Amino acid sequence: MNDVMLKLKPARRERLADVLYGQILEQITGGQLVEGAKLPSEAQICREFQVSRPVVREALMRLQADGLVISRQGIGTFVKSRPSDKLTSFAASAEIASYLRAFEPRLALETECAGLAAMRRTKAQLNQIGEALAALEGAFQRGETGWEEDFAFHLAVAEAAGNELFPRLLQDLRDIMRGSMRMALSLTRRGSEERRRRVLEEHRRIFMAISGQDPDLARLYMRFHLTESRARITGSHGDR
Amino acid sequence: MNDVMLKLKPARRERLADVLYGQILEQITGGQLVEGAKLPSEAQICREFQVSRPVVREALMRLQADGLVISRQGIGTFVKSRPSDKLTSFAASAEIASYLRAFEPRLALETECAGLAAMRRTKAQLNQIGEALAALEGAFQRGETGWEEDFAFHLAVAEAAGNELFPRLLQDLRDIMRGSMRMALSLTRRGSEERRRRVLEEHRRIFMAISGQDPDLARLYMRFHLTESRARITGSHGDR
Amino acid sequence: MNDVMLKLKPARRERLADVLYGQILEQITGGQLVEGAKLPSEAQICREFQVSRPVVREALMRLQADGLVISRQGIGTFVKSRPSDKLTSFAASAEIASYLRAFEPRLALETECAGLAAMRRTKAQLNQIGEALAALEGAFQRGETGWEEDFAFHLAVAEAAGNELFPRLLQDLRDIMRGSMRMALSLTRRGSEERRRRVLEEHRRIFMAISGQDPDLARLYMRFHLTESRARITGSHGDR
Amino acid sequence: MNDVMLKLKPARRERLADVLYGQILEQITGGQLVEGAKLPSEAQICREFQVSRPVVREALMRLQADGLVISRQGIGTFVKSRPSDKLTSFAASAEIASYLRAFEPRLALETECAGLAAMRRTKAQLNQIGEALAALEGAFQRGETGWEEDFAFHLAVAEAAGNELFPRLLQDLRDIMRGSMRMALSLTRRGSEERRRRVLEEHRRIFMAISGQDPDLARLYMRFHLTESRARITGSHGDR
Repeated sequence: MNDVMLKLKPARRERLADVLYGQILEQITGGQLVEGAKLPSEAQICREFQVSRPVVREALMRLQADGLVISRQGIGTFVKSRPSDKLTSFAASAEIASYLRAFEPRLALETECAGLAAMRRTKAQLNQIGEALAALEGAFQRGETGWEEDFAFHLAVAEAAGNELFPRLLQDLRDIMRGSMRMALSLTRRGSEERRRRVLEEHRRIFMAISGQDPDLARLYMRFHLTESRARITGSHGDR
Repeated sequence: MNDVMLKLKPARRERLADVLYGQILEQITGGQLVEGAKLPSEAQICREFQVSRPVVREALMRLQADGLVISRQGIGTFVKSRPSDKLTSFAASAEIASYLRAFEPRLALETECAGLAAMRRTKAQLNQIGEALAALEGAFQRGETGWEEDFAFHLAVAEAAGNELFPRLLQDLRDIMRGSMRMALSLTRRGSEERRRRVLEEHRRIFMAISGQDPDLARLYMRFHLTESRARITGSHGDR
Repeated sequence: MNDVMLKLKPARRERLADVLYGQILEQITGGQLVEGAKLPSEAQICREFQVSRPVVREALMRLQADGLVISRQGIGTFVKSRPSDKLTSFAASAEIASYLRAFEPRLALETECAGLAAMRRTKAQLNQIGEALAALEGAFQRGETGWEEDFAFHLAVAEAAGNELFPRLLQDLRDIMRGSMRMALSLTRRGSEERRRRVLEEHRRIFMAISGQDPDLARLYMRFHLTESRARITGSHGDR
Repeated sequence: MNDVMLKLKPARRERLADVLYGQILEQITGGQLVEGAKLPSEAQICREFQVSRPVVREALMRLQADGLVISRQGIGTFVKSRPSDKLTSFAASAEIASYLRAFEPRLALETECAGLAAMRRTKAQLNQIGEALAALEGAFQRGETGWEEDFAFHLAVAEAAGNELFPRLLQDLRDIMRGSMRMALSLTRRGSEERRRRVLEEHRRIFMAISGQDPDLARLYMRFHLTESRARITGSHGDR
């Protein structure tokens, strides 16, 4: 492990933690920060990036949650793994941080949607989920990213929850969800066959649990799918 | 138990299940449907209210979830308890159903907010939650409903979750949340001293769990509070 | 779909529902009950098997939860899928039902263990989990079932939870857990390479989440693993 | 806040963390450690008590989770609140720590039991839960602690879960559960009327959720009850 200079441009924008997250991510992806490299201390980053301590902490916490760095108490923070360099070719790095953040409310909302859908879906709603699944599969076979079909699938589940507030809230997240889906699925399209198979299988399980009217199973599979989707973006499981 | 005539006006609006829910609620509150009375069969309600079976099922399912009716398999559906007649003086009955529905996405979103807030809140954010709590207590002492203070408390928790999408989504629910808070707290204001004490205590626990940085506890207390708030509206626990 | 005669031997033992579950499972596995076949009505099964209605309901509910039959309200219960015929060569069919039942307390206990282990594990405890994982991989490579290594892994997670009551309770379930692990892993050994890969990956994820000190992730991956293990026994996902 | 001498007797027994927890608890209850007092550093406690760092951390973590001390990062650990001095008159302080530990597996197991009971309970099983509830109320009216009735209630819920492994596991925890119930309810008997009312209400809610066949509600109310029971022992909510 070796200590490195981290190059930071002072920033003055709303989500400072995102910008900082993005700059560090960029340097990991770009190879300036290699695996095992030690990041500067929180205090140093504060000074150099000209932000307060909580902003630095938030950015580091997210990088750690994404499996990109690891903090060892009393020693420091180290680069842990390097995500696909394709990642930063799809979006500006601050935008990537913002896409990743969308998974938090999605986990909360969509896990609940899946459970309610398993209890309440009408036959017509189930068919709509099934059709979105088939459309996603078709898009993959045609070599497309399938992000519109992906969004349609998740919206159909929200509609099957039998409470119109759920699709409304998902619509509020639409732009950010689509951005993250496009990015994730672009990586998947260029990734292995195995990776596409997994994405489909995760959706299929959600469909089956809703079809089988098992709310606990539907919640589990939705939560698993969203967690894995996020991990596929940050690359924390490798190319899968 | 005796069979009764249920008077229904055919309706043609978007949320038919809400309108149906509201009409039945009104007759229970108004005393036309007394405890133990048997509702007409699903098929009869379909015909009379001129809606499809899923609409009737949804309305009955919600009435049952709210503890207002009870279904006995193969026998029928019976009126179980009668909510405060003050209830329908605050809002049109279809509106009440819509307020109640807001608790579903709130449970999903706010439970998660409370957990994240316990992990991430800054000292300033914690103070803001504490101030909203004090303001709610003050409002109660002045004999006000305190619904604005209540909303401010929940928004402060969402802000402490460290992800700006949470307060944004809560803002989307603002009107419907405020409606339900105003209704619930109006009932509370006219209710017993004990009831006000409970409302405050539930908020205080959420604050303490976030202050103590215990995410599981914060989730539990938020979930408990929202569940109890809903029950206070439908009156399923009595005047508490 | 065609109606079939279900051959049942009246039974008088403690877990009547298990025995009934086992007899129906046996006839599905053995091919007497083919896909799409309609089971006799609850009332008929009561009479023929000479048990009360709740016993029949419990057995049918479990068969449905295991994806072996499907109930269509007001129409009847139908055979949905046929598990591997290897299944009943490993254990008497009532024993299989008892093994499957062990997953319920395991889901409750071990999900919590995984979460606590992520928060509390010492370095030595983490190493022990890692060694059990390596041992399981080794067993698979040598063509063994690896059920002792599997049990050792789960026990190591329970020990890392920092509360000696968890390993004690797991020891109480030891015999039934080992029976179900032996059965599941025997099916896996004879199954596809893909299936072994999945079993290892599920364990590896649990290890990584505990190593990364992420309690929510550890809970999710443990719950996913146990759910999938159960599904691998009943064959509800096919040979995976 | 003032720095104090903490008197510790070196110990060599299996659950060192419990013994250490108990000694500190005793000094808080006994008044040697007053509110606001600063505990010695982890390193000092290690030396004086002659145990390793993880043992000290575990004891402090539990004291903090129980609301008895609070850690301020980089500053130290301080006494936060003083539980009822009646507490240590009921049991040796290491025993108290062991009773408190029983709540962890109980939360995992009994939350799940309550959910399954809501889905599966027969009418006879529901009656048994109701009778245990009535017996607990009777015991309170006669001025008894009611701990046997309390255990009977929880066992009846486990039996209604429809899986004999749950009551079996609860029986394994019987002695430790009874110890903690006896202690908690002795405190309750000497406590306020309000406190007894709450204990009954918590049980009544669990019963009602199981009766109303609402698994999510049953899980929530069981989790709430167990969390509050634990808090009543450590006194972290005051005399309630």
